[in-house]
Amino acid sequence: MRISELSRRSGVPAATIKYYRREGLLPEGRALNPTAVEYGEEHIQRLRLIRSLIQLGGLSVARTREVLDAVDRPLDAFETLGVVHHALPVPSADKNAKGIKDDDGPDGAVDEAVSGEGAAASVDALIETMGWRISDASPHRPALAESLAALSRLGSAYTADDLIPYARLATSTADLDFAQLDGIEDRIALAERAVVLTALFEPVVRLLRRLAQEDANHRRHHRRACVRGEHPAE
Amino acid sequence: MRISELSRRSGVPAATIKYYRREGLLPEGRALNPTAVEYGEEHIQRLRLIRSLIQLGGLSVARTREVLDAVDRPLDAFETLGVVHHALPVPSADKNAKGIKDDDGPDGAVDEAVSGEGAAASVDALIETMGWRISDASPHRPALAESLAALSRLGSAYTADDLIPYARLATSTADLDFAQLDGIEDRIALAERAVVLTALFEPVVRLLRRLAQEDANHRRHHRRACVRGEHPAE
Repeated sequence: MRISELSRRSGVPAATIKYYRREGLLPEGRALNPTAVEYGEEHIQRLRLIRSLIQLGGLSVARTREVLDAVDRPLDAFETLGVVHHALPVPSADKNAKGIKDDDGPDGAVDEAVSGEGAAASVDALIETMGWRISDASPHRPALAESLAALSRLGSAYTADDLIPYARLATSTADLDFAQLDGIEDRIALAERAVVLTALFEPVVRLLRRLAQEDANHRRHHRRACVRGEHPAE
Repeated sequence: MRISELSRRSGVPAATIKYYRREGLLPEGRALNPTAVEYGEEHIQRLRLIRSLIQLGGLSVARTREVLDAVDRPLDAFETLGVVHHALPVPSADKNAKGIKDDDGPDGAVDEAVSGEGAAASVDALIETMGWRISDASPHRPALAESLAALSRLGSAYTADDLIPYARLATSTADLDFAQLDGIEDRIALAERAVVLTALFEPVVRLLRRLAQEDANHRRHHRRACVRGEHPAE
């Protein structure tokens, strides 16, 4: 197909396709003559992945190239997913939150156990207790430690044990996530799907938690009213 | 205490305290004389909540005033939490993601069931099946519908049934969240805690899911190797 059809079928403007080619993200097509290039199905698939990484995943062109290089190497699905998973933006609290410190304690003293080092140790202990296999290079280790340190600066210190019930539910959620990848054998399709799931399905999981929280507030209210001998309106 | 001590103990700069007073977020202190004002413990508590809403929650001054007005009304803990919960920023996919449309299908046709209306119906069906009590005014209803519509435009349509296993895990997570609020009876402290939990603990939950996904990738890899009769290195 020509670039116009490639653009139409991939939903990516021709100018953007040319830009991706110049940046080395998209392989060249087959030159028919000095002014016409023929593209194939592999270009459509590749464009879908590029678009997912850049538009959905929010990756830079340089980071996208790294992921594509990994996808092009003869890696298995396991390694491909690992590369994509570590390349995606890491969840974190709003930047504003990081500057907040709880100075309302005795002379602003911060418990040793809740400092940055303490938080990193909690993360290691949690991973150990859960028996999780997590690469030392995982960006999610320091990010979790940072979130825990921010919480403890605000007076909410969590130990590894406090987080175990949440970690167990996270394991169950991750199993559901991987069930969604079952049956996808092609590595490029797998990488694209992983990006879509992380970028678009993560908000779904967060919103389900918010809805469940609203319901939990109702249930708690009802329970307390019953304990007090009241019968709240249904 | 004078404003200098209020500033030291709350961790909020004096200029910011004065700004909050001008904006009507913080009640006036007791005037000792024309140039000196005395503040009390209630001002520290109020400042903590304001700081949480604005810095952690990312709320505007106007929205913060609405939440404070609600907290000042003689609402019970249930209603206070409800107001805070709906005022906080709603999770959503990156704005870039919303513009993406999957045109690779047959002439870009979008299945009727996956359109915006279909997605809203899926959300209603999910809430109904789960027996969740969710206000019609909840901002999380349309946000979830929007996320589902975005996913289906990219070729990943989810029915209410597909989401039930995730919704069940969300219920368990919400129960853990509410256990963290147990024992807090003061409404202002409760509101502050709810903001901290949403703003800072939500990234923790997301990061635990990412870590669990990495482990799930390992387990899936191991299982597949075993099925093939291979014995991957531990």
